Amino acid sequence: MANVSKKVSWSGRDVDDDEAAPLLRRAARPGAPAGEATPLLNGAGPAAVRADMDPLHPFPKEIPHNEKLLSLKYESLDYDNSENQLFLEEERRINHTAFRTVEIKRWVICAMIGILTGLVACFIDIVVEKLAGLKYRVVKDNIDKFTARGGLSFSLLLWASLNVAFVLLGSVIVAFIEPVAAGSGIPQIKCFLNGVKIPHVVRLKTLVIKVSGVILSVVGGLAVGKEGPMIHSGSVIAAGVSQGRSTSLKRDFKIFEYFRRDTEKRDFVSAGAAAGVSAAFGAPVGGVLFSLEEGASFWNQFLTWRIFFASMISTFTLNFVLSIYHGNVWDLSSPGLINFGRFDTETMVYTIHEIPIFIAMGVVGGILGAVFNALNYWLTMFRIRYIHRPCLQVIEAMLVAAVTATVAFVLIYSSRDCQPLQGSSVSYPLQLFCADGEYNSMAAAFFNTPEKSVVSLFHDPPAPPGVESVWQALASALSAGSYNPMTLGLFTLVYFFLACWTYGLTVSAGVFIPSLLIGAAWGRLFGISLSYLTGAAVWADPGKYALMGAAAQLGGIVRMTLSLTVIMMEATSNVTYGFPIMLVLMTAKIVGDVFIEGLYDMHIQLQSVPFLHWEAPVTSHSLTAREVMSTPVTCLRRREKVGIIVDVLSSTASNHNGFPVVEDADGTQPARLQGLILRSQLIVLLKHKVFIERSYMGLLRRRLRLKDFRDAYPRFPPIQSIHVSQDERECTMDLSEFMNPSPYTVPQEASLPRVFKLFRALGLRHLVVVDNCNQVVGLVTRKDLARYRLGKGGLEELSLAQT
Amino acid sequence: MANVSKKVSWSGRDVDDDEAAPLLRRAARPGAPAGEATPLLNGAGPAAVRADMDPLHPFPKEIPHNEKLLSLKYESLDYDNSENQLFLEEERRINHTAFRTVEIKRWVICAMIGILTGLVACFIDIVVEKLAGLKYRVVKDNIDKFTARGGLSFSLLLWASLNVAFVLLGSVIVAFIEPVAAGSGIPQIKCFLNGVKIPHVVRLKTLVIKVSGVILSVVGGLAVGKEGPMIHSGSVIAAGVSQGRSTSLKRDFKIFEYFRRDTEKRDFVSAGAAAGVSAAFGAPVGGVLFSLEEGASFWNQFLTWRIFFASMISTFTLNFVLSIYHGNVWDLSSPGLINFGRFDTETMVYTIHEIPIFIAMGVVGGILGAVFNALNYWLTMFRIRYIHRPCLQVIEAMLVAAVTATVAFVLIYSSRDCQPLQGSSVSYPLQLFCADGEYNSMAAAFFNTPEKSVVSLFHDPPAPPGVESVWQALASALSAGSYNPMTLGLFTLVYFFLACWTYGLTVSAGVFIPSLLIGAAWGRLFGISLSYLTGAAVWADPGKYALMGAAAQLGGIVRMTLSLTVIMMEATSNVTYGFPIMLVLMTAKIVGDVFIEGLYDMHIQLQSVPFLHWEAPVTSHSLTAREVMSTPVTCLRRREKVGIIVDVLSSTASNHNGFPVVEDADGTQPARLQGLILRSQLIVLLKHKVFIERSYMGLLRRRLRLKDFRDAYPRFPPIQSIHVSQDERECTMDLSEFMNPSPYTVPQEASLPRVFKLFRALGLRHLVVVDNCNQVVGLVTRKDLARYRLGKGGLEELSLAQT
Repeated sequence: MANVSKKVSWSGRDVDDDEAAPLLRRAARPGAPAGEATPLLNGAGPAAVRADMDPLHPFPKEIPHNEKLLSLKYESLDYDNSENQLFLEEERRINHTAFRTVEIKRWVICAMIGILTGLVACFIDIVVEKLAGLKYRVVKDNIDKFTARGGLSFSLLLWASLNVAFVLLGSVIVAFIEPVAAGSGIPQIKCFLNGVKIPHVVRLKTLVIKVSGVILSVVGGLAVGKEGPMIHSGSVIAAGVSQGRSTSLKRDFKIFEYFRRDTEKRDFVSAGAAAGVSAAFGAPVGGVLFSLEEGASFWNQFLTWRIFFASMISTFTLNFVLSIYHGNVWDLSSPGLINFGRFDTETMVYTIHEIPIFIAMGVVGGILGAVFNALNYWLTMFRIRYIHRPCLQVIEAMLVAAVTATVAFVLIYSSRDCQPLQGSSVSYPLQLFCADGEYNSMAAAFFNTPEKSVVSLFHDPPAPPGVESVWQALASALSAGSYNPMTLGLFTLVYFFLACWTYGLTVSAGVFIPSLLIGAAWGRLFGISLSYLTGAAVWADPGKYALMGAAAQLGGIVRMTLSLTVIMMEATSNVTYGFPIMLVLMTAKIVGDVFIEGLYDMHIQLQSVPFLHWEAPVTSHSLTAREVMSTPVTCLRRREKVGIIVDVLSSTASNHNGFPVVEDADGTQPARLQGLILRSQLIVLLKHKVFIERSYMGLLRRRLRLKDFRDAYPRFPPIQSIHVSQDERECTMDLSEFMNPSPYTVPQEASLPRVFKLFRALGLRHLVVVDNCNQVVGLVTRKDLARYRLGKGGLEELSLAQT
Repeated sequence: MANVSKKVSWSGRDVDDDEAAPLLRRAARPGAPAGEATPLLNGAGPAAVRADMDPLHPFPKEIPHNEKLLSLKYESLDYDNSENQLFLEEERRINHTAFRTVEIKRWVICAMIGILTGLVACFIDIVVEKLAGLKYRVVKDNIDKFTARGGLSFSLLLWASLNVAFVLLGSVIVAFIEPVAAGSGIPQIKCFLNGVKIPHVVRLKTLVIKVSGVILSVVGGLAVGKEGPMIHSGSVIAAGVSQGRSTSLKRDFKIFEYFRRDTEKRDFVSAGAAAGVSAAFGAPVGGVLFSLEEGASFWNQFLTWRIFFASMISTFTLNFVLSIYHGNVWDLSSPGLINFGRFDTETMVYTIHEIPIFIAMGVVGGILGAVFNALNYWLTMFRIRYIHRPCLQVIEAMLVAAVTATVAFVLIYSSRDCQPLQGSSVSYPLQLFCADGEYNSMAAAFFNTPEKSVVSLFHDPPAPPGVESVWQALASALSAGSYNPMTLGLFTLVYFFLACWTYGLTVSAGVFIPSLLIGAAWGRLFGISLSYLTGAAVWADPGKYALMGAAAQLGGIVRMTLSLTVIMMEATSNVTYGFPIMLVLMTAKIVGDVFIEGLYDMHIQLQSVPFLHWEAPVTSHSLTAREVMSTPVTCLRRREKVGIIVDVLSSTASNHNGFPVVEDADGTQPARLQGLILRSQLIVLLKHKVFIERSYMGLLRRRLRLKDFRDAYPRFPPIQSIHVSQDERECTMDLSEFMNPSPYTVPQEASLPRVFKLFRALGLRHLVVVDNCNQVVGLVTRKDLARYRLGKGGLEELSLAQT
């Protein structure tokens, strides 16, 4: 079916396997006499469509994009095993020992996920360091040259051009090769774990683009971090490793074939996401919690242990390799991509007086986070409407790169804050107009990756010596009275807007580090103001307040609590601050939620993804399955004519993925539910021509095995690619062996929360609604549930659209 | 029904509300003609029972207790809301704002749970400190007196008598007043969260006995800790607070009535358990993970946040109150009951060489843990068989107390390890035969609560000065060559057996601290041997190895991994050791699992609790719902005669708790499933006489409200207490309004893992099995699923028994 998809969407341009609400033909009309339904099953006439819809264009092709829509272009994952005869036969053949082998394989895969994720993180880290070092050295030499003889505008030009060049490359590969690699990837992985299939999201190509993209964006000097993308990278690695093959590379290692289904794949992707967090922040427990808080719904102890194992291996691998790279082979001092440095627990404690202050910081974080999200919301809307062509996206990214470099340069240029060179640990000191033996401390901030600036905000002593970052320099300057507080506020503001503008660009980049940086900046400012107001009390350590500010700002933007608390605890190697960090995060979340959703949820909604939240809207008890379900449903019979199956699958008006199988109706009995069969299964059956020919009744051409389905997973060919001759159309197909004979069902009277709970807890894709006699009356899919949402005025219903 | 229940079981002596597998009467026989089933529904004849069972004694009354049984005496909790008309009407009345109030109430309750749990922990801590202080001072004075003039056996007698007296009191209240308060309470809470109702487990009386009992056992000098019981205490507090009333005290505060059902109560009990862990170890994140790892199956983000909140409040309350008590009002230095002390991250790092050593320690911990569990298994079997009368239990507890005191005394007496008094922090130094200005370091260990010994094992420097504990003294002595390693081994062994003997006594006490102590002891020994072997290498810090040993031993006994890692990290305020601790715990678990289950699981199994594990046995795909379900099922009709209902409820041969409701059969149609009604609902209906009298057809006596059901929750009266006159027996009752009209169902073909998944994920109590025409053919309850287990030789089926 022709599909006008916008380029900014995650799904790329070649979506060909859409899923639409089932509305083709009806099997049984509720309340209708029993016999009436069956003729429709045999009729090969045109599909019945909803009365209120144009049969040729069931959905408007181009609609103003807004958040009150659900897109029909996203398929669901199926976390419910199809327990058909083939599957049960296989399971029954496998004995106890063989299951132990499967279990061991799961652990081996998790170890591999951990190792590979750790190695990818190392690769990113080392390449960024090398490239950024090269860039800064070239620019520094140039600035040093031009400072003396004037003409620093050339230096600006050089710096900006270098940045723009990196960003151009990073943006081009994302925009033209794999748009789904844009951004941090966290919303996409959240969706995947929730059960929504974002096309291409776990492909090898995506990984390559993601990794290259994040390196180029960070080196390009954008206000981005390399941490978020690690989560996506870990997930792709997990999805790839667990399948034992690469469809892109056309290599099948013939291992781990048992895991080739959505259920198993999701479990491994959870582990990959956790391994990614673990490598990014050196936070293995935080990684597990991230995976669980943001993704999984069914908590399984064994799965959790495996996830934990993958996380541990990942941070250990990173630590080990980076320790070797840095020359301290045995000391294991680099557990994560970003290391917040040690907070010495002896000197930095908090007292009970400070708790109201922390809560106040949480409020500020919540409000600033909401402002950030609101701005980004409007920006994203603008992008969806007007910047949806790849070239425009690339141009925007280049523009942001140029502006970032220019702003930084102007700030450095107009800064007169000089610091003595000796004893400082600045990587690329710029002298500029400072005296010999001194460097421009403003430049130190912009001449550095954002990670290092965060660390210096946390740790640099409040007194001048050894400053490393602009914020810190300004902050200490403030306490010394040599700087105008207005200037300091201006800086925070500038970075805030830069980060906000940058998030959502068509580059591969994360928002964690910029958020932490903004928060650390105003947090430190807050702490310094506090010690200024209270007469420099000892407890008002600016580093501590920088940490709280960072937590507040990040919490206000992404709205994570438990996992973020643990990530912060692990990244700072400090448990003492657990309670205040948790208070700050909780406050920031509560305050932020009053205004607007979290950044990731917002982006998921802006993409109109049918995302299922944790619970049904509280006021939805008035709805029942009868109102929620899609009806009429296309049903197939146990023994169905091949022609009918092909017609049903090829129907362009709707594009079902699951079909209830009903009794072979003889016209006298009602068509009772017998099972459920998936489009993908039918495709495989058609492909292998598992027909019963009229002349050889009862003789199957070939016995299909589970392997045939697994080999086809996950990229099943479209129906159009399968040729079925006119003769074959007259054959019948016996679905008994392949259908799932025990699909989950609900009665029509079940309330929406009840249906929702079943659907969500079991990760279903199709839920059959039956009447009192077990006849099919409707089908509930993800969209039918996701469209009900709690708005400001109560329950609201989103409309479905083919975006 | 008469019930011979053994006294050692958790359930106490007055179990009167048993739940048995439904086997009374059949509604519809699979495959039988449609009309045949209905007459049975009307028949008031004697109950049909299984053919292979004596109808008068369906279960053997007294059976040799073993782990291959499932007891029928445990009821299930019902985590599935009965969404009947009353409930839906109420939910539909409540608007959006009212739901927000409900949500706020949940947070308020969690805060209250946290505060109360924290206060209870403070109370225990302070009372133990006071009482133990008093005891030690009295004994010390006595010893000091008799050391000089001989006759130390009087001192032994005094010490032993004091201990025995405390333990006697502690044991009497547990054995005679509330047997369910025995032990740590963790297995009971695990069962509760799993969905098994252990009678009395969350009652106020249990809390009082638990708290008094744990104080008396710790003061009585047993090898026990006060941490485990905190988890139980927190759970009781949560169950009480969330209901807004105390049934025991007959006080109803008329608040939180919305939460009076199993679903809501379980959520709060999770929070209470987490708050308990949090208060015990100062580990709020560990508490959340404990609650999730050991309890919940459905992970809900909002619930997790509330649990986290309760945990945080709990540790904060404890910290605040204890800080005030200790006179350092503002410094918040006591986050938990046990504080492992700070591990200084700067000096104590680990290198990659040590990882194999840690793994080896994990192996040792796993093996020692398995030995511990195996010994305790045999001991528990012995206790179940022979020590099941309260007086015997009390005598055993006194014996253990006397032996513990005697062994300690003998060890002190035979020790000649003297340490200088100045500079040491020993609370109650005993001089004994040491020179003036010195104290007996062996006595320091036994003259102290186990918590303090653990801390000194972790932290005391390897060199002699400042020793505080026996193990450490011995250890440092070993490195100095003045002690025989055999002596040291003997000590570890003695404590090991003491702790093993103590766990399972009829006293309220935990196993965490003794396990940590044993592990810290051999861990430190291990570390010292290592530095001895390697020529006193700097990295072989005994404290570090003591920590790893403690983790290994505890992990080997209880087999927790993720939550225990976090608890250890939080209790030591150290994140750096996260990876080695995790490695050690994982190894200990894997090694231990080869031999025997974890201690808690073992005790759950020994009590024959129908505990549902995370997944169905892997090889159970060959079983289907048809084989698993209980059949025939007692069904009721929508409009049923009161007499029949009363008869069904009073039937002593079986004791059902859920009844499928079928169509009003007119003899021509099959009886199709219409809903499900619970015994408790029927009881309330009968109590309020919601009948339609023959003379006033269609007129209800009174309109029942949901409040009537909530008021009766959770202690519904037995059917015997409700008088139904002969006239009333002829009335009919319309169940339509009260039954759950959309019970979850499965077809007969569904495999056991599929049924299991549905049952476990949704926390069901009854799952109706229907045939192709939606007729009831069977009912799956918890026991039907819990009885299948993976044994050594493959799938095995436990037998059901009325223990």
